[in-house]
Amino acid sequence: MTGYHPAAEAIIMDLHDLTRELNQKNDSKIVMLVADGLGGLPMTPGGLTELETAKTPNLDALAQIGVQGASIPVIPGIAPGSGPGHLGLFGYDPLKYLIGRGALEATGIGLELQPGDVAARGNYCTLDTSGKISDRRAGRIASEESAPLAVKLRDVKIPGVQVIVKPVKEHRFVVLFRGPGLQGHVKDTDPQKTGVPPLAAVSHDPGSEKTAEIANEFVKQATKLLAGQPKANGLTLRGFSGKPDLPTYEEVYGLRAAAIAVYPMYKGLARLVGMEIVGKAQTLQEQIDVLKANWSKYDFFFLHYKYTDSTGEDGNFEAKVKKIEEFDAIIPQVSALKPTVLIVTGDHSTPSFLKSHSWHPVPTLLVSDCCRPDGNREFSERASIRGGLGQVEAKYLMSLALANAGRLGKYGA
Amino acid sequence: MTGYHPAAEAIIMDLHDLTRELNQKNDSKIVMLVADGLGGLPMTPGGLTELETAKTPNLDALAQIGVQGASIPVIPGIAPGSGPGHLGLFGYDPLKYLIGRGALEATGIGLELQPGDVAARGNYCTLDTSGKISDRRAGRIASEESAPLAVKLRDVKIPGVQVIVKPVKEHRFVVLFRGPGLQGHVKDTDPQKTGVPPLAAVSHDPGSEKTAEIANEFVKQATKLLAGQPKANGLTLRGFSGKPDLPTYEEVYGLRAAAIAVYPMYKGLARLVGMEIVGKAQTLQEQIDVLKANWSKYDFFFLHYKYTDSTGEDGNFEAKVKKIEEFDAIIPQVSALKPTVLIVTGDHSTPSFLKSHSWHPVPTLLVSDCCRPDGNREFSERASIRGGLGQVEAKYLMSLALANAGRLGKYGA
Repeated sequence: MTGYHPAAEAIIMDLHDLTRELNQKNDSKIVMLVADGLGGLPMTPGGLTELETAKTPNLDALAQIGVQGASIPVIPGIAPGSGPGHLGLFGYDPLKYLIGRGALEATGIGLELQPGDVAARGNYCTLDTSGKISDRRAGRIASEESAPLAVKLRDVKIPGVQVIVKPVKEHRFVVLFRGPGLQGHVKDTDPQKTGVPPLAAVSHDPGSEKTAEIANEFVKQATKLLAGQPKANGLTLRGFSGKPDLPTYEEVYGLRAAAIAVYPMYKGLARLVGMEIVGKAQTLQEQIDVLKANWSKYDFFFLHYKYTDSTGEDGNFEAKVKKIEEFDAIIPQVSALKPTVLIVTGDHSTPSFLKSHSWHPVPTLLVSDCCRPDGNREFSERASIRGGLGQVEAKYLMSLALANAGRLGKYGA
Repeated sequence: MTGYHPAAEAIIMDLHDLTRELNQKNDSKIVMLVADGLGGLPMTPGGLTELETAKTPNLDALAQIGVQGASIPVIPGIAPGSGPGHLGLFGYDPLKYLIGRGALEATGIGLELQPGDVAARGNYCTLDTSGKISDRRAGRIASEESAPLAVKLRDVKIPGVQVIVKPVKEHRFVVLFRGPGLQGHVKDTDPQKTGVPPLAAVSHDPGSEKTAEIANEFVKQATKLLAGQPKANGLTLRGFSGKPDLPTYEEVYGLRAAAIAVYPMYKGLARLVGMEIVGKAQTLQEQIDVLKANWSKYDFFFLHYKYTDSTGEDGNFEAKVKKIEEFDAIIPQVSALKPTVLIVTGDHSTPSFLKSHSWHPVPTLLVSDCCRPDGNREFSERASIRGGLGQVEAKYLMSLALANAGRLGKYGA
């Protein structure tokens, strides 16, 4: 797993070939505010979305001087997870760069992958007396019950390999193997059905055989350690993957980039593209304080706001409206810093109506001295489709940001 | 240098594979009016652009019967030079087809490359007594001073090779080598900094070794000829390149195409895709006269209008407005010819506000009997983003033109 989609090698001219070639430095500042899951839907046909319902005087004021568009996270109809959603915003084609499930889970709990590590997502399962899976999720065992199991699994000892096990929510955990000669091309051991035993770990290629052997040894010892557990007496492993090999912001854009996030997942994603994680903010106001405190030290700031997504996932329309209003309230503090380019967007839509990530384009706002106004008076889904950026794949937001910041020279003579 | 990006060989299905396959002939006429650098920006936030300020009754009338769109020259955020800007309009993916700087400079001064020629852009520089560069541009020596130097350099004699030297503006010149066995994969001799001597010409591959030897011999003799010049006593060479290998309009579209341009650069670009250069017009009215005189002889006409770009480059908003109005004034003469398809566009934006080419989409108008009206009442940046063509990469304008002209059959059964 190199972070490079196998079929992508045929791609012609990469966006980053251009940004590298045309890069020019200056002292501009770019701020990208990501309200996770920002886009929404009305709860009833013809109604207003969360963003359209929210009172957002500050974002509306920006819409009058900036340019709006509808950002397509991947391609039309594709709802992304957090990984591809953010890679797109960061300008990394999410169909080209893949982050394996194991690597993403590890990232999400703050476990930093080193080159050569292989991580897998584990599920506790219930095995019957003949060793066949009777419940693939061990009855969705509560987190309080599963957390001690992860500690127990740390007793697995495999010579020459460091084994790190961390609990995730409910029946989930992450296992990370650290040692020489490991690669992540190993098939899942989850048979995706009950009534059969877990599969053996099998490598896709010779370079991953050692990983497969280690995984099998881990499963063998772990199953012994779990023997006698009422529900979680077995396990399956999925999404074996190493650290994705992503070029850095410094390398592809010439930007010193900082990430200001509360949750480990977004810090981890930012770290994968070479951003520095700054501050230990727990609230949005603390994030803004971190932004101010670090203003002179970086060229680019990614600020991640989680609650527009989590309220949408909960299907709580009113709560999402409120979180959008809280987000709007901090905008003046960002504008006061006078960023050369300010982008407000989301990594995907999370309509309360759907209680999940969706494929709907995300209202996106770009403000700079040289954006072409589009006549919009407010920031909303409806306005965004009449915006001057049109419907634009998220992966192009960074080239637009760089252009507006004067950081891209002319292509060709 | 084949005009083919090295990484592009893997491209799957080319736009031209389709236009070739679906091509059908008829007696339609397509006119593409290119107002160079047409798109603009307001000078103050919320203001009007040059095009929005200009009185354009004729273009506005076309907007009411045609369909409008915002043409993206390359991809979002990328400002093109004239080369990629026009290749896009001509339907040649500007990320796939590259024109080397030497070839483009030669084209720009009317020096027609033949297959096997290699051209380079030369810069006079100032060398100190130890042969190190003290000024990479020879104090931006005036054109009147540098033109005689180009004549002097014609005394360079290299056996078996014709050496053509032509002055360009200020410290610039073009050198063209013509002879058997030459290829253009040679590195620049410009070290891009002062305090070091010019680099030797080095070939990227064995096929270009002869070119590198000839270039070094040229530099050696030329430096002797320049000895004693107060500023321009040295030179560097950049952008070695041959004639780009572009398929022709006849071959990819089945069109007999004519180009009506005043400036050598645009004639040269048109010639590279197999257009015939017709007339010797010096004014827009003369260009229109040439269009009328040649109406029966061609299927496609590219008419290039320069002054919307040059006034934008000068940062002269009022002058650009006036040039747009002059351009508008000739529209009735074009309409009177009853072209089957009329396209009005630009190769990029040149906002007076930025005094340079920019990445902003270009207002684009397509008029035919079968375009779907979009309700726009005027031709402008604001209208274009609400147009029926949407935001469309420039490279698709030709397939749209062909379709509207009834020159493309159905794809697949």
